Amino acid sequence: MENQKSTCRITDGFFKNYQELVRTVSIPYQWNILNDRIPRAEKSGAVHNLELAAGLAQGEYYGTCFQDSDVGKWLEATSYALETKPDPNLEALADSVIVLLEKAQQEDGYLNSYFTVKEPQKRFTNLRECCEHYCFGHLAEAGAAYYEATGKDRLLKIACRYADLLCSIFGPAPGQSRGYDGHPEAELALVRLYEVTGKESYLKLADFFLNVRGEEPYYMELEWEKRNHAWHYELNKDVNPRDDRIYDCAHIQPRFQKKADGHAVKVGYLLTGMAAVAAHTKDEQLLAACRSIYDNIINQRMYLTGGIGSSRHQERFTFDYDLPNDRAYAETCAAVSLSFFTRRMLDLIPDSTYADTLERVLYNGTISGMSLDGTHFFYLNPLEILPDACRFDQDFKYVKPLRPQWLSCACCPPNLIRLLASVHRYLYTVRDDAIYVNLYVSSEGNLTQNGRSVFIRQETDYPWKGEIRFSTEGFLPDMHLALRIPGWCTSWELLDHTGRKRSDFYYKHGYLYLSLSPSDSFLLHLDIKPCCVKANCLVKADAGKAALMLGPIVYCMEELDNGPQLYNIIVSPDAGFKECHSSDFPQGELPVLSPQGAALYENAVFLEAEKARREVSAPGQVLYERYYPEETQAVCARFVPYFLWGNRNGKTPHEMQVWFRVMRNDN
Amino acid sequence: MENQKSTCRITDGFFKNYQELVRTVSIPYQWNILNDRIPRAEKSGAVHNLELAAGLAQGEYYGTCFQDSDVGKWLEATSYALETKPDPNLEALADSVIVLLEKAQQEDGYLNSYFTVKEPQKRFTNLRECCEHYCFGHLAEAGAAYYEATGKDRLLKIACRYADLLCSIFGPAPGQSRGYDGHPEAELALVRLYEVTGKESYLKLADFFLNVRGEEPYYMELEWEKRNHAWHYELNKDVNPRDDRIYDCAHIQPRFQKKADGHAVKVGYLLTGMAAVAAHTKDEQLLAACRSIYDNIINQRMYLTGGIGSSRHQERFTFDYDLPNDRAYAETCAAVSLSFFTRRMLDLIPDSTYADTLERVLYNGTISGMSLDGTHFFYLNPLEILPDACRFDQDFKYVKPLRPQWLSCACCPPNLIRLLASVHRYLYTVRDDAIYVNLYVSSEGNLTQNGRSVFIRQETDYPWKGEIRFSTEGFLPDMHLALRIPGWCTSWELLDHTGRKRSDFYYKHGYLYLSLSPSDSFLLHLDIKPCCVKANCLVKADAGKAALMLGPIVYCMEELDNGPQLYNIIVSPDAGFKECHSSDFPQGELPVLSPQGAALYENAVFLEAEKARREVSAPGQVLYERYYPEETQAVCARFVPYFLWGNRNGKTPHEMQVWFRVMRNDN
Repeated sequence: MENQKSTCRITDGFFKNYQELVRTVSIPYQWNILNDRIPRAEKSGAVHNLELAAGLAQGEYYGTCFQDSDVGKWLEATSYALETKPDPNLEALADSVIVLLEKAQQEDGYLNSYFTVKEPQKRFTNLRECCEHYCFGHLAEAGAAYYEATGKDRLLKIACRYADLLCSIFGPAPGQSRGYDGHPEAELALVRLYEVTGKESYLKLADFFLNVRGEEPYYMELEWEKRNHAWHYELNKDVNPRDDRIYDCAHIQPRFQKKADGHAVKVGYLLTGMAAVAAHTKDEQLLAACRSIYDNIINQRMYLTGGIGSSRHQERFTFDYDLPNDRAYAETCAAVSLSFFTRRMLDLIPDSTYADTLERVLYNGTISGMSLDGTHFFYLNPLEILPDACRFDQDFKYVKPLRPQWLSCACCPPNLIRLLASVHRYLYTVRDDAIYVNLYVSSEGNLTQNGRSVFIRQETDYPWKGEIRFSTEGFLPDMHLALRIPGWCTSWELLDHTGRKRSDFYYKHGYLYLSLSPSDSFLLHLDIKPCCVKANCLVKADAGKAALMLGPIVYCMEELDNGPQLYNIIVSPDAGFKECHSSDFPQGELPVLSPQGAALYENAVFLEAEKARREVSAPGQVLYERYYPEETQAVCARFVPYFLWGNRNGKTPHEMQVWFRVMRNDN
Repeated sequence: MENQKSTCRITDGFFKNYQELVRTVSIPYQWNILNDRIPRAEKSGAVHNLELAAGLAQGEYYGTCFQDSDVGKWLEATSYALETKPDPNLEALADSVIVLLEKAQQEDGYLNSYFTVKEPQKRFTNLRECCEHYCFGHLAEAGAAYYEATGKDRLLKIACRYADLLCSIFGPAPGQSRGYDGHPEAELALVRLYEVTGKESYLKLADFFLNVRGEEPYYMELEWEKRNHAWHYELNKDVNPRDDRIYDCAHIQPRFQKKADGHAVKVGYLLTGMAAVAAHTKDEQLLAACRSIYDNIINQRMYLTGGIGSSRHQERFTFDYDLPNDRAYAETCAAVSLSFFTRRMLDLIPDSTYADTLERVLYNGTISGMSLDGTHFFYLNPLEILPDACRFDQDFKYVKPLRPQWLSCACCPPNLIRLLASVHRYLYTVRDDAIYVNLYVSSEGNLTQNGRSVFIRQETDYPWKGEIRFSTEGFLPDMHLALRIPGWCTSWELLDHTGRKRSDFYYKHGYLYLSLSPSDSFLLHLDIKPCCVKANCLVKADAGKAALMLGPIVYCMEELDNGPQLYNIIVSPDAGFKECHSSDFPQGELPVLSPQGAALYENAVFLEAEKARREVSAPGQVLYERYYPEETQAVCARFVPYFLWGNRNGKTPHEMQVWFRVMRNDN
């Protein structure tokens, strides 16, 4: 992939702060977590388990059977951090983990601490539950990333040895297994290995996995029969895998799927694998399935924040327009997976919808999963919190009003940091016809298109300000730069370096296609103003409501700024919203922040509604009484960026809501 | 109790139809159910199990360990039906069941088919889960009712023998058990036995059960220790009973309880027992607890329909103002229990709030539990249905959009029919100071107050019309008749038989106290007009919404009349509502009804909003877009009485909603 040969560096601003926060705080923190050195945090066991597998430690395996994947993700995040900024100490630490992995790898290439330590005879006997391919995938992604970041191929070779083993065991030949993992991930990772090594067998295996998933006879049932109906998880004990093929996205073969059904993270990873394979095989059917499922997600099944998978029950998609705000599951990993998928789609289809979704999820439903201190994490990302419900209503069992230090199922925190550490890789998509600007981020990029090198510098305070100053070098007359006009943006202009309007472009599918002189500079001005949005009428949860955005940023109200019973606040979406500085709002119990965490907070734009009222109960008001138009008081309704919610309330749960009730101007 | 010496007969109208429906259809139907003679219905086993215990049948016990209670409730319902209208065949059938119970009763008085058949060594070893006292209670209530209805004491004696056994086993004396049932019911039933037999020991045992519940050391834990932590229900296997004392209403002794916490039916039965005991013991502390818990229910924890217990998780109360409409549990039994409790409170406190609540629950949240054909039943009574949620969202697992023929846990159907069969007993409360009219029902009552007999006739089309014509005989100048002015009623007048306004009354706590001449007649006119109500601002689920009532009847919108997406319909609560006849509305797939079912349907007032609009999605509308005031179309919003919902849609689930979005008149 041409894009992979590009190198970009984020130089300043929003994602620079996130990358530095991850590099300086979250990566060291998570290393301590993986080594169980953080008091009172959920135990990980991840490094310990690998030491057991390597014969370097004594004791019991602990944690889930997919704990290895956390190490893979951490190494991948670390790779991107090293790509961003060399750090000999961090690299030495990573190298030591790689040595450990090498020792834990078995003679034949197999590498999985759970099965090696606990059930060596049961390798690949329970693909539905036990995530062996999934763990392989995260190892492989780390191997590719570490090689690209450092030039060192030791981890890549470990991954390839394991991939070679998979290629020998799984495949279409007689005697080979037609199995595939319950949790997609190997598919996208095998393509990644293929892209780094050029080894065709990896691409073929990825394609094979996509083709056998869902075929008859049903593999998940066959292996279950072979196991005499034994399950790894107690909770599955009465399950016949045939009864819920949708959960595994295996109801029909992926190429025939039309909607986003099943476990949301599985869907997201599967789609990423499908798009990745399609990019190389030019498989139009697979690509059509990606488009169809994507359309279903963005038109019927995605929260405003980019969160997907509304139900806590099996972390699933449910049905069209079912987007409850309070019980929203919207797992951080699922949002992260949507980033992976949309980025792959951008390689295939020059349509800004994919970058719009990427932007939506990057600025909202992913980063809400981490506190500003970089050390607390959400698994769920609800759009509404009522603390009493979290406490007393079992339907809200998993909805946490406060970010914990770690999670017993810890897929999300390292997934989020690997995404953030790699954001510089999401800025551009290099296609034959143009270089596409996906994201507006202060950065310097050296990109190669059709063998020709160009340089692009962006300077901007995006997403808080809409000016993006571009300087480019090396563009030839037949090359295009395609600037995305975000879906949320209704007014923009393009100015040359003298401040005059530029009009040497054409517009198509959300992009301005621009021809540049060899050394060029221009200013893109996107009009970023507070703006209310509404949901489709079919979304029951949002009926009669609106939400507030500023550019790509979704806002929410918090109890700290507005008092309790946020549901009694009515806001006029037609009146204005005042932009405020964070210091205009109560700081509450904001934790001690690193300089980058502090900068993220201080740079953020907070908003106040110019016209809002609160319905108030009369003193002693009974539960039900004859209807009368509710008494209201004028109030100042205050909004903070959704990704910042829950950072200022210490250990006290408080209310939050994204969608608010609407006042007509004539009220 | 004086009241118990009164005899009332419902002569016509709403509850006459319900009583006849129950007598002619539901009682025979449920008898067939208890004998497993209804194809495709959930199995009961109730009669079979008693036959096993009596040594009259072979085979396996089946159903829950509290199946006996269904037989007790059926016999109680049958008693009231016989009280209403003698029926030799039905009486003979009941007598045969009583013979069966006698045979199933053990030498020492014990009577419980589950333990007799399945675990004879484990009697009274698991009071928390196994409902032995609960089953006793339903037997005892049936015994008292059958005796009162027929004068036959065979069932009463069976109950007393069992009660005597309980009195010997449980009590404060050394060597006696300080246990009490996980599910209250014995308390209220023992008072009932006391009231019929005058035997003090029954009242004392009821009082004892109320006093030991919640005491330390904690009985539920002691018995669990004795059982070596064995549980009857698999789902309890990891439970330490101490960890959830609230579920059993045993967190503190009932007299010290202030709020409605725990399993809603348990709370309702416990309260009934508390009020019943307090009536005889004059225990002010117990009564104060009843008042406090009641206040919490009606001011913070009750649905508009009188449904209580909002959460499916352990069928519980959750927290103040937590009244989700779509996930509402609102078990039929819980609403029924509120009838029992409020009726007991009316004996104690001459305040119309208790009769208002009784009326609310009788006309709405109880009878919604049965279809108009008398043979299909709801366990849950939600205030909002979205069929796709019931189908695809596990949080709606128990919410049924259609009434099944029977239920595997079948507490509700026989509970509802025993309530309906006994409604004639709820019309009046005779106190020393006055005879209180609780309910307006066409009826004839012979009542005894302080040894003096009076006769009261009511003629009315209530609840559809507000005129109630009273004729009375036998009142002396120092006697009062207290007419309830319902809480929903804001305009009324009292006319003498010539049509002139009458003013010889005074008003107190919701009642008009009237002195009558020895032979008197008058007309009470309650102004029954469609009227919208609102919920307290603190009810999040109802924010920005209203509901429609006509007198005591709560209304709802159904998809059949309004199309889908009821949540997009906005109604002006200030504009009028047109009263319609049922024939003005689509009849859909209304089942073949008995004459009484048909009369209930035909007499019902249906309503149309004079001003309503529907928000409509533009064709191809995306999921999120810039806010604009929603496009609306004028629509005819149609409402049916809530208790009738789900009767016209055959086997097709459809939408329903009670609370609707509000339009201001200026929209």
